[in-house]
Amino acid sequence: MAQRDQTQQETAAPPTLGIGMVGYAFMGAAHSQGWRTAGHVFDLPMRPALAAVCGRDRAAVEAAAGRHGWAAAETDWRALIARDDVHLVDICTPGDSHAEIAVAALEAGKHVLCEKPLANTVAEAEAMAAAARRAAARGRSAFVGFNYRRVPALAHARRLIGDGRLGALRHVRAVYLQDWLTDPASPLTWRLDKDRAGSGALGDLGAHVVDLAQYLAGEPLVAVSALTETFVRERPRPAGPSGGLGGGAAAGGTGPVTVDDAAAFTGRLASGALASFEVTRMAAGRKNALRLEINGERGSLAFDLERLNELSFHDHTEPAATAGFRRVLVTEPEHPYLEAWWPPGHTLGYEHTFVHQARDVVCAIAGGTPDVPTFADGLQVQRVLAAVEESAAKNSVLTPVTL
Amino acid sequence: MAQRDQTQQETAAPPTLGIGMVGYAFMGAAHSQGWRTAGHVFDLPMRPALAAVCGRDRAAVEAAAGRHGWAAAETDWRALIARDDVHLVDICTPGDSHAEIAVAALEAGKHVLCEKPLANTVAEAEAMAAAARRAAARGRSAFVGFNYRRVPALAHARRLIGDGRLGALRHVRAVYLQDWLTDPASPLTWRLDKDRAGSGALGDLGAHVVDLAQYLAGEPLVAVSALTETFVRERPRPAGPSGGLGGGAAAGGTGPVTVDDAAAFTGRLASGALASFEVTRMAAGRKNALRLEINGERGSLAFDLERLNELSFHDHTEPAATAGFRRVLVTEPEHPYLEAWWPPGHTLGYEHTFVHQARDVVCAIAGGTPDVPTFADGLQVQRVLAAVEESAAKNSVLTPVTL
Amino acid sequence: MAQRDQTQQETAAPPTLGIGMVGYAFMGAAHSQGWRTAGHVFDLPMRPALAAVCGRDRAAVEAAAGRHGWAAAETDWRALIARDDVHLVDICTPGDSHAEIAVAALEAGKHVLCEKPLANTVAEAEAMAAAARRAAARGRSAFVGFNYRRVPALAHARRLIGDGRLGALRHVRAVYLQDWLTDPASPLTWRLDKDRAGSGALGDLGAHVVDLAQYLAGEPLVAVSALTETFVRERPRPAGPSGGLGGGAAAGGTGPVTVDDAAAFTGRLASGALASFEVTRMAAGRKNALRLEINGERGSLAFDLERLNELSFHDHTEPAATAGFRRVLVTEPEHPYLEAWWPPGHTLGYEHTFVHQARDVVCAIAGGTPDVPTFADGLQVQRVLAAVEESAAKNSVLTPVTL
Amino acid sequence: MAQRDQTQQETAAPPTLGIGMVGYAFMGAAHSQGWRTAGHVFDLPMRPALAAVCGRDRAAVEAAAGRHGWAAAETDWRALIARDDVHLVDICTPGDSHAEIAVAALEAGKHVLCEKPLANTVAEAEAMAAAARRAAARGRSAFVGFNYRRVPALAHARRLIGDGRLGALRHVRAVYLQDWLTDPASPLTWRLDKDRAGSGALGDLGAHVVDLAQYLAGEPLVAVSALTETFVRERPRPAGPSGGLGGGAAAGGTGPVTVDDAAAFTGRLASGALASFEVTRMAAGRKNALRLEINGERGSLAFDLERLNELSFHDHTEPAATAGFRRVLVTEPEHPYLEAWWPPGHTLGYEHTFVHQARDVVCAIAGGTPDVPTFADGLQVQRVLAAVEESAAKNSVLTPVTL
Repeated sequence: MAQRDQTQQETAAPPTLGIGMVGYAFMGAAHSQGWRTAGHVFDLPMRPALAAVCGRDRAAVEAAAGRHGWAAAETDWRALIARDDVHLVDICTPGDSHAEIAVAALEAGKHVLCEKPLANTVAEAEAMAAAARRAAARGRSAFVGFNYRRVPALAHARRLIGDGRLGALRHVRAVYLQDWLTDPASPLTWRLDKDRAGSGALGDLGAHVVDLAQYLAGEPLVAVSALTETFVRERPRPAGPSGGLGGGAAAGGTGPVTVDDAAAFTGRLASGALASFEVTRMAAGRKNALRLEINGERGSLAFDLERLNELSFHDHTEPAATAGFRRVLVTEPEHPYLEAWWPPGHTLGYEHTFVHQARDVVCAIAGGTPDVPTFADGLQVQRVLAAVEESAAKNSVLTPVTL
Repeated sequence: MAQRDQTQQETAAPPTLGIGMVGYAFMGAAHSQGWRTAGHVFDLPMRPALAAVCGRDRAAVEAAAGRHGWAAAETDWRALIARDDVHLVDICTPGDSHAEIAVAALEAGKHVLCEKPLANTVAEAEAMAAAARRAAARGRSAFVGFNYRRVPALAHARRLIGDGRLGALRHVRAVYLQDWLTDPASPLTWRLDKDRAGSGALGDLGAHVVDLAQYLAGEPLVAVSALTETFVRERPRPAGPSGGLGGGAAAGGTGPVTVDDAAAFTGRLASGALASFEVTRMAAGRKNALRLEINGERGSLAFDLERLNELSFHDHTEPAATAGFRRVLVTEPEHPYLEAWWPPGHTLGYEHTFVHQARDVVCAIAGGTPDVPTFADGLQVQRVLAAVEESAAKNSVLTPVTL
Repeated sequence: MAQRDQTQQETAAPPTLGIGMVGYAFMGAAHSQGWRTAGHVFDLPMRPALAAVCGRDRAAVEAAAGRHGWAAAETDWRALIARDDVHLVDICTPGDSHAEIAVAALEAGKHVLCEKPLANTVAEAEAMAAAARRAAARGRSAFVGFNYRRVPALAHARRLIGDGRLGALRHVRAVYLQDWLTDPASPLTWRLDKDRAGSGALGDLGAHVVDLAQYLAGEPLVAVSALTETFVRERPRPAGPSGGLGGGAAAGGTGPVTVDDAAAFTGRLASGALASFEVTRMAAGRKNALRLEINGERGSLAFDLERLNELSFHDHTEPAATAGFRRVLVTEPEHPYLEAWWPPGHTLGYEHTFVHQARDVVCAIAGGTPDVPTFADGLQVQRVLAAVEESAAKNSVLTPVTL
Repeated sequence: MAQRDQTQQETAAPPTLGIGMVGYAFMGAAHSQGWRTAGHVFDLPMRPALAAVCGRDRAAVEAAAGRHGWAAAETDWRALIARDDVHLVDICTPGDSHAEIAVAALEAGKHVLCEKPLANTVAEAEAMAAAARRAAARGRSAFVGFNYRRVPALAHARRLIGDGRLGALRHVRAVYLQDWLTDPASPLTWRLDKDRAGSGALGDLGAHVVDLAQYLAGEPLVAVSALTETFVRERPRPAGPSGGLGGGAAAGGTGPVTVDDAAAFTGRLASGALASFEVTRMAAGRKNALRLEINGERGSLAFDLERLNELSFHDHTEPAATAGFRRVLVTEPEHPYLEAWWPPGHTLGYEHTFVHQARDVVCAIAGGTPDVPTFADGLQVQRVLAAVEESAAKNSVLTPVTL
């Protein structure tokens, strides 16, 4: 293996960017890994410091702080925001608390990174975007965690499309298939509660594919037609409390599922390209199958998150005798983010998207211009999801996406 | 390799089933191969004889007869139908002539096999189905050429679903992606003329995936919501005449494309399962990508026509540690049609679907009960396609499929 | 679908090439399909006629003649050779009878096509090659049935290598994995009897991969080092007679396996490229996995017979950011043999190699120059296999291949 | 996504295990990531502390310490060993310094983790193993860095084989294909210098596949037959110094490659199973293709490092109609190491092997019994590699592996 050149001198220590994270369950663990690692891999203009983590249960949040490397623990997110050593608030809670925490943090002069979906309603997302605009005037940034944009293969796909390698786009098709609700006995967690989660597969998985479709195509969806479905309408209540801010249903009996299990929708992009989407948590055997394909007049791209180091690329300008989808192993130094990692062929995983997100957020705050999605992007995706729900409620009629 | 046991005695020669085929272009060539080969591979209760082929151009049809092994050539389909040595009329022409030929053949006491889509309109298909019902009373059969049901992997999939291996169905998703219209300079053939072809990708490709989805699921679509699109609305007229009955556009200039290039539609099956479909001739790099996936509570199946010897099967009842989609190479004697072919691992191709179709049609006529789709099936698919077009014309509103 | 142009006039009927086939089990069925079909697909300079088939059992061979479309049946191969309507003798028997039949047929002035491996010993193969040289002087040809050269993807691979797309070759690796002997209770057929079959996996599977490696590389193996193994040394004798000339072990008890179950060998090609091979009938789950990969300084190719319509091609001169193995679906009119078949994306199967073989043999006899392997090629492969066995017997020492 | 349960209380802080690392190039960066991360993911009985890193160039090693999170930097490995805060010495240098450092560290009472291959010669490896035995008596451990044993899919494969799911083994085949030397203009680094690296692809890649083959099979290779090759015998000297201890060739001109570019070898395992191996740095398009397949009487396993989250498993006891290689996505909590990571379907990458290695080493030192390879294992692999070289030097004769 070619050795990495380690000879560059590091001179003056970069300034610190103190992070305060709210929530420490799955997303919190992933974000922690991102903040801990980014500075060891990338040359960053600021050094992220894991200042404090926040959760409601004192013992649990202290344990999480120890586990994930946070210097302090808080049990009140307002106290977290108030800390001087916190410069960026990272919101990893369920969607029902995003707006309140984000707006308060921005008003307190903090930068914010908020998990997707940005909010549970368009109204909340609009309020957040408005707060972000006000904060921008004071030099504060507000980002939304569409981490899959930082999968190197997808960042590379965006480059290829931006370079015109696909020509005029004809089709975008995307599915995001999981199977953890296949079993009707799977418990009723907060993710199945509309009040907490906003929606089901649509907000959790649909937000990702809608964002990616628009990001890769470089243009918005203008209208959608949708079907949604809840196949299993009652599920057993879970026995114990769940972690962090996510938690705490009472045990025993069954309760109603108030979100969608699945959604299938079609749409048109601004250019006239056709789009089709399907998201579900009941595709037995599909664990994390976010699959995208984009067809253009000059070529096509395909991707599967379960094989996230690979991008399939078909160059339609090649002679037919040797044309075909290429399996590009996106591990070359020429590929986005890869120069900082391992030699060609040495693959990355899911969590690297959070390392890349940490890098991009730090660079953006330090004045660079990486392509980091903002609250405005989160709001626009929220509007697409709202149009999906509206169409599903109106017999699938093609429904425009609010500009 | 295990040797095939050839020792069975063949005693009295089976009776002859004289075939008369109308049209001899792509489908005609494929059907010829099916009729020629079936009796050499399967033990058939009747011997198909390639009695006569019909086309409008005398020299061309005689050449085709020689090439494809037909004993005689006719230039008038009415003359073909009138021949005593023709017992079954095989219709391989564009859709605008299906109804007239099929009804006449049935009324003349012939069996009929008609290529899909059954007709260009529901009204035509209804007339054909009515003629088929009348003919059935006289012991004549009318089949529609949904040849992909005879891909062994798909016939096997049907068995697995019929056996309950997938449990309650949740999702059916199917795409049929081709790319031969990607180039805007691709010529304006009869397939792009609504008067000849009825519709574009929808009738050509959509008929297949709608039929397969319903066949595999064992239940009909009850409603659909659709978008259709014609991306390239003018194309150059082709220079020369095309073959068989398919032919003959004037040369030079451009003309309007009057059919869809692509269609995306969603729907519900009778059981409540969600279905999604996409068909297109503009997916650069996808040559014949008929891809199906069906997810149920107990398992899932996936298939790709470009790898037609393989069926992916996930058994969701297995322990998680060893569960996963299996690549079943559908070449075992236990698999449909395979006992008559080669040892395990020796693959079949596209044209074998026509050999299997010939076998099934012969067996059905001889009184057996293979699962051969009839004009009633073709009519039902036509109704789904009509509902797709109606929905697309009505702003994608969810449109019921006429029973 | 683009229509096939059927307008070419067929004028004077081409002369007939009468085929006489010896043996009618698996290979006989496959060859029959090839002879029956080639003239319906390709424009051939001579018309193959299925004149007569030969086997020892009168009733069985007559049944086979009826099934496979042969005009007559013989029970003595000498009688077959003597027939005036037989111009080419097609030998589909076990290896122990190849030499005698082939030499007699050539001396009788017939063309010969002989299944691989050419013979059970180098001495027999030498005698056959000598007879072929004598026959050539009289205008008779002698071909060996390396049918996999006619897989379109492999013929295409040969073209790409011949065109220099791989540059200097570094590696050839090939495996041919089957699993039908995995079960120790699998019966003792003639294929496990050294006297009948010559060798086991080595002759049956190794002959194919050795031929392909040399054919694709365009250069011979000059030395090999080998291990062979018989994992299961006793197997149950089969109950009944086997078909055609292949047959007839007594029932009951067990008997010794006298051929190899598997062989692993390495070698050097004339250019210095390294080669590695493995053949086995005990690779559970691998049904017909003939897998080849060739690496050169400018590119690589990979192939798997279980997906025989695909060729993987890596062009190492491409920019790294978009380089990768392409899945070329070898179904384009630009690909070998494909212009005569179906539109792009419509796949072929195993048996098409025999249709292509029939085409190539007919064209070669008619004076064309297709690239059909001769007895000289078969002899050379036999010498490689002999060197493998010699090396295995001599503690794997690197053993030169006789020129 | 199911939430991770974070409620376990962490009570008394675990003791510290101070790490001192020698070398900080590619392997050093990977090991650093492992040591930094393991404690944040797994519940460890000791807390690894990145005490000090060592390299010859003061400025460079200090920069590396900052980058990778080491508390101190040393320029003399003897000084590193002497530090009281170093309890384990992690050797990430080229092979020529392994023995000296490892023996000194063990004699100084430190635990040792040494990168593979253990040494450049069997004699060195024997000295190291002897030192390890002496150290063991004093409670010190000596591990070798066969990190690929900690790919979850491979650890899972070991379990399945250990549980008898494959039955009696018949075949082990393994290749490790890279392509970074394909270009003859690729520079002459220390990895191409026999004095520094010991051997080429053989030691670098072959050590991995030999270890894995034996580890998975649960039995040693007893004899090997080999070919090795250096295709490009002169390469340009690199311009600048390389990093860490790896460094420093003079610039300009060309120099001889003194190691192998590739090796192909076969062998026998103790049980009689056949093994075949190929390793190369000149397989254009293959970046990190460590591919393994193991066939047994009851099943088979296959793996590709470029898709390291997947294990292919064929259960040969299943009915043929539904049997086939399953793509097991090794991301379930039931899979090795996975309970500590993300929800199902969220994949890991290359570097996680080093996190797992850190975990296993810490647990082993703390008295647990994870399956961590020792210097004895490293010596045994060295003996296999020596037998490979001996066979290659002796005309490929089958050469026993010293016990």
